[in-house]
Order: sequence, then C-alpha cells, then structure tokens
Amino acid sequence: MKKFLAEFIGTFWLVLGGCGSAVLAAAFPELGIGLLGVALAFGLTVLTMIYGLGHISGGHFNPAVSVGLWVGGRFSAKELLPYIVAQILGGLVAAGILYVIATGNGSEIGSFAANGYGEHSPGGYNMNAALVSEIVMTCMFLIVILGATDKRAPAGFAGIAIGLALTLIHLISIPVTNTSVNPARSISQAIFVGDWALQQLWLFIIAPIAGAILAGIIYRFFAEKNNE
Amino acid sequence: MKKFLAEFIGTFWLVLGGCGSAVLAAAFPELGIGLLGVALAFGLTVLTMIYGLGHISGGHFNPAVSVGLWVGGRFSAKELLPYIVAQILGGLVAAGILYVIATGNGSEIGSFAANGYGEHSPGGYNMNAALVSEIVMTCMFLIVILGATDKRAPAGFAGIAIGLALTLIHLISIPVTNTSVNPARSISQAIFVGDWALQQLWLFIIAPIAGAILAGIIYRFFAEKNNE
Amino acid sequence: MKKFLAEFIGTFWLVLGGCGSAVLAAAFPELGIGLLGVALAFGLTVLTMIYGLGHISGGHFNPAVSVGLWVGGRFSAKELLPYIVAQILGGLVAAGILYVIATGNGSEIGSFAANGYGEHSPGGYNMNAALVSEIVMTCMFLIVILGATDKRAPAGFAGIAIGLALTLIHLISIPVTNTSVNPARSISQAIFVGDWALQQLWLFIIAPIAGAILAGIIYRFFAEKNNE
Amino acid sequence: MKKFLAEFIGTFWLVLGGCGSAVLAAAFPELGIGLLGVALAFGLTVLTMIYGLGHISGGHFNPAVSVGLWVGGRFSAKELLPYIVAQILGGLVAAGILYVIATGNGSEIGSFAANGYGEHSPGGYNMNAALVSEIVMTCMFLIVILGATDKRAPAGFAGIAIGLALTLIHLISIPVTNTSVNPARSISQAIFVGDWALQQLWLFIIAPIAGAILAGIIYRFFAEKNNE
Repeated sequence: MKKFLAEFIGTFWLVLGGCGSAVLAAAFPELGIGLLGVALAFGLTVLTMIYGLGHISGGHFNPAVSVGLWVGGRFSAKELLPYIVAQILGGLVAAGILYVIATGNGSEIGSFAANGYGEHSPGGYNMNAALVSEIVMTCMFLIVILGATDKRAPAGFAGIAIGLALTLIHLISIPVTNTSVNPARSISQAIFVGDWALQQLWLFIIAPIAGAILAGIIYRFFAEKNNE
Repeated sequence: MKKFLAEFIGTFWLVLGGCGSAVLAAAFPELGIGLLGVALAFGLTVLTMIYGLGHISGGHFNPAVSVGLWVGGRFSAKELLPYIVAQILGGLVAAGILYVIATGNGSEIGSFAANGYGEHSPGGYNMNAALVSEIVMTCMFLIVILGATDKRAPAGFAGIAIGLALTLIHLISIPVTNTSVNPARSISQAIFVGDWALQQLWLFIIAPIAGAILAGIIYRFFAEKNNE
Repeated sequence: MKKFLAEFIGTFWLVLGGCGSAVLAAAFPELGIGLLGVALAFGLTVLTMIYGLGHISGGHFNPAVSVGLWVGGRFSAKELLPYIVAQILGGLVAAGILYVIATGNGSEIGSFAANGYGEHSPGGYNMNAALVSEIVMTCMFLIVILGATDKRAPAGFAGIAIGLALTLIHLISIPVTNTSVNPARSISQAIFVGDWALQQLWLFIIAPIAGAILAGIIYRFFAEKNNE
Repeated sequence: MKKFLAEFIGTFWLVLGGCGSAVLAAAFPELGIGLLGVALAFGLTVLTMIYGLGHISGGHFNPAVSVGLWVGGRFSAKELLPYIVAQILGGLVAAGILYVIATGNGSEIGSFAANGYGEHSPGGYNMNAALVSEIVMTCMFLIVILGATDKRAPAGFAGIAIGLALTLIHLISIPVTNTSVNPARSISQAIFVGDWALQQLWLFIIAPIAGAILAGIIYRFFAEKNNE
C-alpha cells in the first residue's frame, strides 16, 4: 500500500511539474522558460521523487519503466498491474489540479501538454518520425535506468542520472512529439483534451512500452548472474 | 546559538540570491536570465547552503519547512519559534542589502520580488489558483525534504534533491504567484513594497504552512518506527 | 564483446542526443533551447551513459578519450582499436536515426550538426582559432576525465564532473567550431553532409587527438606510482 | 610543484571557460547562451576542476579563496603567496589563449570580460553597489566553501556545492559588476583591456579579499575544535 501511494504521488508530481511548467511557464511573455525549462522540469520531477520516495517504491512513476524493469528481470510481474494503476491515477489527479490552476486566469487549456504527431506534432513531424523517436528515447531511458541502478554502478547516483536522462530526452524530442516516453503522462493530458489527443494516444502507449521491452532485452545481455 | 546564526545566514542567502537574481538579472536587456535563471538561483541558494551550513542547523531556511519537519516528527517543538525568528530576520536583512544594490543604478524597486495573486500575479491568476498552487507546491517540497533526509534514502544527496526541488517549484509556479512556498521570503519583500504586498501576505503565510502540515501527515504514513 | 556494445550504445546516445538536440530543438521558433540547451544535452548524454554503462566499458564514447586514457597509462593499447571502431559505428547509426527523424517534417538536413571552420564556423572563426580551440578544449576535457577517475578523487562523482565538463566545453566553443572534441561525433555528421564537411574533417580528428595526448602527458606528471 | 601547476591549470580553466563563454557565446545571434549560460560556465569550470585536480592542490583557483581558507584556519600561510602567483599566471595565459580565439573571426576584444562599476557596470550600478555586491558575494562563496569542505559535511559533494555557488553568484551579480569575486579573473581581463579596466581593478582585488576575510571569521565561530 505504501508503494502504491508512493507511485501515485511520484507520477502526480511528474505530470504536475512537467506538464505544469509547459502549460504555465514555457511561453510566459519575455521571461518564459522555453523548451529548455520544460525539459529541466520533467527531469527534476523524477530526480526529486527518486530521492524523496524511491526507497519506498523503487521510483518508477511510469508504466513503461515498470514494464522495462520487469523484462529486465528487476521487477516482479505480480506488482506490475497495481503499479500501473497507481501511476495512471496519479497522472489524472495531477492533470485535474493543473486544470484548476491553469484556468485560474481565464485561459482555455487548448492542447494542454498533450502528445501528438503529424499536424499535432509541435514541429510537424509525421507518424513515422514520432514512432522512431518514442521507441528509441524510451529504450535509451530504460538503459540508463537499468544500468544506473545495477549493483555495479556507484550507489546513490541513480536519481541524478535518471532524472537528467529524462531532461535530455525532452531536450531532443519535444519538437517531435511533445515527448511522452510515459503512457501515464500521455493519458492524463489526452483525457482532458479529448478528440485528436485520444485518437493519437495509442502511439504514446505502444511506442514507449516497445522501447522499454527492447531495453530490457539489451540489459539482460549486459547483466551478470549475481544481479538481483 | 550556532544553529540560529546558520538559519539566519541561510535564509539571508535564499532571499538575496533568489529575489536578487529576479530583481537584478531576470529582465536584463537581451541577455537576461528569465524565469529559468531565477528558478535555478532559488534552488541553488538552498543547495549550496545545505552543504555549507546544513550540518550546523539542519538547513531549513524556511518557516514552512521547520513546521513540516515538526509535524513529520523530525524537529523539536521547542526550537520552532527561534528558528522562525532567525529565518525572518535573515530574510529582512537580505532584502535591505538587495535594496542598496538594486537602487544603485537609480532604479526604483517597484514590486521588488513580492508574491501576489489576482492583479498582482505575474500571469493574472486568481486567489483560488494561488491558494491551490502554494499549498500543493509546499506540500510536495516537504515530501521531497522529509523523504530525501530519511535514513532509508542515500546519504549526502539530500542537498541536491531539495535544492533542485525548489528550482522545479519555481519553474512551474512563478507565473501564478511569483512562487513563495516560504513565508520568510514573502515577508521580506512585502515589508519593502508595502501596500498590496502586505494585504496579500496572509496567503503566503497560511498556504505554505498548510501544505507543509499536509506533507508531515503523509510522511508519517510512510515513516517506519525506526526513523528518528 | 559487452564492452564494445557499451561503447557503441554510449556513442550512439552522444551523437543522437547532442547532435539531435542541435538539429531538432536549438532553433525551434520562440521556445528553442539555443546553444545553452545543446551544451546541456551533449553533457547529459555522457553523464547518463557513464552511470548507465560506465561499469561495463569505462564509458569513453569518444576516440580522443580512449587515446588520452591510453597515453595517461590508464587504458590498454590492445583495446584501443576495437573501442574506436565501436565508437565510430555507434555515431554513424545515430546519425542515420537522426536523419530519419529530422526529415520527418519535410526538412532538409542542411549542415546537420557538422563541425567546421572558416566560412563553416558558426561564428566565422578561422582555421587557426579552430585548431587552438579544439586542442585546448580536448586537453582540458581529458584532464578532468583523468583526474576525476583517479583513485584520489571522491568515488562516484566522475560521471557528473565529466558530463558537465562536456557541457562547459560546448558553452564556450560552439560558436568557434560547433564543438567537436570527439572524432566519432564529427565523422558521423560529415558522412551525411559530405562536401565541405568531409574536407574539413581532418581538423576534427587531429586536433582532439593532439589535445588528448597532451593531457595524458600532463596527467603522468600528476599521477602517483600507486595509481592503476 | 604539483600543487602550483594544479592551481595554474584550474585558474586557467576558470578564466578560459567563464570569460570565454561570455566573450564568444553569450550574445551569439538568436541562439546565444546569455547571462544564464555564462553563470553556468563559470560554475562548471570550478566544479570540473575540483573533481579533476582538487585532490592535488585543494582546488582554490582564486586568491580570495586562498585568503579565506587561511583566515578560516584551513590553509597554511607559507603556501599563500605561491598559490596566488600560480593563479594569476594561469588567468593571464587563459586570457592570452582567449585573445587568440576571439580575434580569429576579425573581432576586436572590446571590453573582453572585464569587471567594472559606474559607467562600466553592465547595468550601470555605482561604486557603492559594486562594493557591497562583491564583498557580500565573496563572503557567501567562502561560507559555502568552508562549510562544504568541513569534516562534518557529507564527503565528496563539495565540488558540486562550490561550483554551483559560483554559478549562483553570477546569476545574481553579473549586471552589477560583471561579477568578479576572484582577483585573478579580474586581473587577467584588465591587463588586456587596459585603461578604465586597470583604473577600476583595485575594487575587484580589495572587495573579494575583504569578503573572504569576513567569511573566515564567521567560519571560525562555527568551527569545532576537531576540525583541521
């Protein structure tokens, strides 16, 4: 129960902080934080929560991460479903809180921080580019996660490496898909936006999970017998 | 006595560095640091002072943090008042120094780095959005603080997690309230601005403390018996 | 074999993340990450992969780094060639993936993220300035790498110091040469751009390696007998 | 001798990286790194060199730091002069290398990255504001340095805290004086600029050293008997 609350809170923070900075602060007149600030915010949600709650739940905050850790032999199948439910719920509650704040100056939410491709890609990238980007980015994210939490890596530093990996992924790929690599984050925004965001949601569930599975397989090649 | 001086100096640095970067450098022509730079500055004041003085006083630098740690069972009631007094005094002296520097090119201080809502919110957010934002942001800040300094978290990294949590909070919420999550920071600026800043000051005292109390309660659920 | 796959993946990430952020996100309208974001991205590719895969291969991801470590007496001659081959291949595959993504909105790749001097320097710097910059930057990069991984330095922090050293190097020298300090990175882009990028490629192979050799010699002066 | 070479190289890197990023990249058209990027660069020079060479010399790279450590009882008087000479020489050589690179596209060096007040302050701040800023900033810098390297602080993290303290100081005070807090950095630029930069140089020698002495005295109050 503690674990599920930790995953709920952590994913709540990821969506509130990452999507919140995008919606509230990215394009603030003159002084806005831009894509660089949003990238930093997404990464710092994960960095801060791994140190804050990682010792409770392992600090996944992302269904693709839970799947990747399971494929990599580092997470048990029986916890997979409850973790994913907690993550999706945390994201949804965060989107609700963000809705309350963001509309507090009379604004509409517009496309919120929803993910998209084709005409809904920030930079107009097609479905093919979006698929490649989400698969590769999530795969590399999981390689960092699996490696940095491996017993052979220096203890304690994983939160820094994993959080900043998410920052890096956003620095590269926000123009392509608004960056998902996390189905819970994508679901939370699509529910509020509806319409095209729901129609394109499949890609942001399938591609991150495919990338995570690929990383789990690569990690098994690197792993030694004595890893847990 | 060492503890109170440490809290005085740390809060002095938080206000001088955070509010100072906002007043002096955020909107510098062409090359200004923007909200991203201000967010980084606030976080780095705390990061640097936790490593510099955290071993003396615990590194609170914020009345809401002291209250949250007390509710979470990690700080003694009898030190609460002197800590808060030291923090408020440190913030006021910093505001005085900043006043001397900022007016050194003939500028007026205008709204300094005061917190506000409604027409005094940077992005025009109403009181309701401001309340939600300050309560939630401070609650999450304290969850990071309580968790990252828990014995089960990796030792030494708390200063990084806590400092960057404050950066993250500013990346999200400067447009809403100019971000407080710290009554000492808000008081220091409101005293110099007077007028509306003093009238709205209640929110930036009550909301951060409410959020901190909420986090203390959540933390108690996570805490194990063997935590100090 | 694990080592070579690790060097392949790490250099793949360096080129995909560093050059990818430059091509996709640096000049995004209004919200682009600029040279600061690109500098951060290059550094974070190395930071994340040192924690993710450094315990497998040592985390070079750069032929100049492998050469510098060899001159410094920290890497064996017989692994030098296979490491360099893996690094160059990783860079090329990354450039291919980036090509697929970047052209997914109908754009041409233009000069990609190729390195250049004279009329192909971002800021119009001549060959002499380019040579000095690449030699000095790579030399300082290797001094950080050799020092931070020395047994006398605090354990575990090398990934942070090395990654952020690469960020720093880009903050200084992107205007001069678009910053190489890594022949594998330069080769990967020049192959796709052809023409002038191939003609100027010699400088971005020779200068980084010269700087790395210089650093290896300086390090030997600092090194104690009891270093491995 | 190793120590002096380490201080020479470290201060060389501080001036080349910090002033270099300011001169070459801060105002690059459209994509420039701005004051935020320069602040990050200054901090990262120190962060990277503390991990790279701190175990050789202690990693001062700044005459004011050496003086502050001496007043705080953490550095021997007999090494003070040779350290300061090495630091000044390192800064001067860096300024020479930067001159070669910066003029490689036909530019004049203009005011280089020299420090100034009054009409030579970036934001037009008067001498009084400059004095207060440099004294307070250097004092706080030394409080972080002395505290983070104290035996009671967590081991290994000092390089992060100290480097990012320098970033923070630049985020606040570049508009006031272009930020010195380091006489070796100021001397290196003033020699190349001459004229007004030499006339105003006294402030950037006296104020940082005064601030450092003040911090050393404060630290002695915090220090326990069992500190070295």
